[in-house]
This record gives sequence, structure tokens and C-alpha cells, in this order.
Amino acid sequence: MSKELVFGHQSPDTDAIVAAIAFADFEKQLGKEFEPVALGEPNDETKFVFDHFGASVPRVIKTAANEVEAVALVDHNEAQQSVSDIADVKVTHVVDHHRIANFQTSNPLFYRAEPVGCTSTIITKLYHEYELEIPKQIAGLMLSAIISDTLLLKSPTTTADDEAAVKELATIAGEDYAAYGKEMLRAGTNVDSKTAAA
Amino acid sequence: MSKELVFGHQSPDTDAIVAAIAFADFEKQLGKEFEPVALGEPNDETKFVFDHFGASVPRVIKTAANEVEAVALVDHNEAQQSVSDIADVKVTHVVDHHRIANFQTSNPLFYRAEPVGCTSTIITKLYHEYELEIPKQIAGLMLSAIISDTLLLKSPTTTADDEAAVKELATIAGEDYAAYGKEMLRAGTNVDSKTAAA
Ligand SMILES: [Mn+2]
Ligand SMILES: [Mn+2]
Ligand SMILES: [Mn+2]
Ligand SMILES: [Mn+2]
Repeated sequence: MSKELVFGHQSPDTDAIVAAIAFADFEKQLGKEFEPVALGEPNDETKFVFDHFGASVPRVIKTAANEVEAVALVDHNEAQQSVSDIADVKVTHVVDHHRIANFQTSNPLFYRAEPVGCTSTIITKLYHEYELEIPKQIAGLMLSAIISDTLLLKSPTTTADDEAAVKELATIAGEDYAAYGKEMLRAGTNVDSKTAAA
Repeated sequence: MSKELVFGHQSPDTDAIVAAIAFADFEKQLGKEFEPVALGEPNDETKFVFDHFGASVPRVIKTAANEVEAVALVDHNEAQQSVSDIADVKVTHVVDHHRIANFQTSNPLFYRAEPVGCTSTIITKLYHEYELEIPKQIAGLMLSAIISDTLLLKSPTTTADDEAAVKELATIAGEDYAAYGKEMLRAGTNVDSKTAAA
């Protein structure tokens, strides 16, 4: 199998960027090569998160078909939220927590959606199902994504799975999630304009 | 939560009927009420399978919205293969192994697709992920569905997951899968006309 790209939606939030990194690591542990990329620059909250955990933000792409034949989507599925030339590549994987619309494939694929608060919660479950270890840095990033999407477990989209993931990831990352979460949400300049199902 | 219906595609094959029964049992073990139904009468192969394992075939429905507000789909997702009034009910779950097309929802949902040979293979994995026991009769039915969809693990759609599921389910069901599988495929009058990705 040749390399694929994995990315979240346009105007990325923390979950869109983090889920791409986490899914690429998950697949790497299964022996496949996915490069995480982004469809836009990180926002202030996301920059704070990557600084805090000493992680590098992925490069930004405008098109995919000039680089690869196949891609994986995280944190979105609708064509109008995706890469501009999504129709010219094969979608092999989707991991998402939104409704399904304006999405179709010609081939069977791996599609994993659950009505939970954050894509990173689903990826945390995937690591467990395949009995893989979550690296400490990725645990910190996914913790941040769940805090971001669920507004520190307070949004109406929050589920028991999100809460369990936050507690587990905080332990792996060595963070006090409540204190860190407040600091992180403050760092985002767009906190007030956030919608619950991000 | 009120009761939901779960069903496979029109002109059901063994997987379409069995996956509905297995998914209803899986959800029942998680505390939810799904009634398995079918969108057509069982074919000769399916009748042989249900006779062999002493199971009852689900009742046939023509419409869903007159009975329930929400449904789960197995072994299909495309509207034209589904119940005639699919647009009038909410789809809460899909478990499938086909391409995604002509499918959309207004709400987040549980969607589980993998590019494997049979929906019953995915449901076998779900039982494991949630650490639930597979009842002996349902193991026999799911074994039959995988044998049917993969033509005894010989179709080009067969994966390592299908093979592992067949071996495990045969052990639970107490069947010699190769001998039983040949007998079962012979019982189907439509063996010659079967397509690989059924
Ligand atoms: Mn998200
Ligand atoms: Mn998002
Ligand atoms: Mn099938
Ligand atoms: Mn089928």
C-alpha cells in the first residue's frame, strides 16, 4: 500500500488537527503509512495545545490528488467541508462524530462514526480495540481535543465515553484535566463563538 | 428509549436476516430494545440455516414509520435497498460492509463499516469489543452468513477477519465449518447466481 494523507475539515479546530495525527499514529502501529496534514492553519487554542505538548503542527495542503491516490477523513465527511479535490481521490477511512451527508464512495471502506462529543474519543476507543498503546504526547493532544469539543465535558453532546477518555488520557499525559482544560479554553480567542458540536 | 426495528436489505440474503438478529441481541445485551425484522421472505439457503439451528425467521415488514420512530440498518445503507419509507424514520445505527451511497442523516449516528466479506464478521468484532458473549445459536447463524457471503472463505472479498470469525463461531456453534458450509451452500438454490459481495 502506498502512502495516504489523513486530514480533518477546513477551518480546522483542535479535534480536526489532533485526530489526523492520532489516526496516523494508530495506523502506523498497524503497519500502514498515513501522513497527517491540515486543511488550514491552526487557531490560537490549537497553537497553545501544540506548544504545551511540544508537538509540531502538520503542514497545510490545498489539494490531495497531486500527492496521493487515497485519503482518510477525520472529524468530517461532507464533501464541502473537505479538501477541494476530494472527488478525485479514493476515501479509504472515515472516523467522525457528525451526521453523514454529501458523502459517497464507489468502494467498501472503513467508516467509524459514533454519536459522541469528539472524534478523538472514538480514536481512543480504537487504540483499545486493537490493543495498542497511546503515546504520551498523543494522549495530551487527544485530551485537548475532547476538552475543546465538549467545552470541558459540559456541552450537551458530551457522553460517558468522552468522560472516560478524558480521565484516561489525562492519566497517560500526566495532566490535571480540569486545571489544564480551563487554561486551554482561555487560550482560544474564539471560545465564545464555539458551537457545541465542533 | 423506545423500541427500534433493525433490518437488512430488500430481497434478503442470509447475512441480511442474520445480521439483524445478531445486532438486536448485541444491543439487548447493552440494555436496548431492537426488534429484528426482514424486508422479504428468506431464500432456500436461509431457510436451511434457520432449520439447522432451530431458529425462527423474523417477520416481514413493508413499512417502518407506522411502528417506530427510529431504525437500525444492517448489511446495506442505500435508500433504494431499504424499507420503502426510510425517509420517514430516523436511522440511529448502521452496520455494513458495502460502499456508502444515497445515504444521509440529519443527526450524528453510530455507523460501523469495514471492507470485510460479511456484516456478521463486523458484529462478531463488536461482541468482542464490548466484551459480550455470543450465544451459541447466534454463533451458528453468523457462521452461516459469513460462509454465504464469502462462499466458504473463497470469494475475493474474504479477509483475515472473516476467516478468524468463521473459526471462532464454528467452535462456539460446535460445527465443522467446511463440511457444514458445503452442505449449506448446496441447500441454496441460487448458489450459481450469487455475487461475491452479497
Ligand atoms: Mn470534533
Ligand atoms: Mn471539528
Ligand atoms: Mn453481507
Ligand atoms: Mn447481503
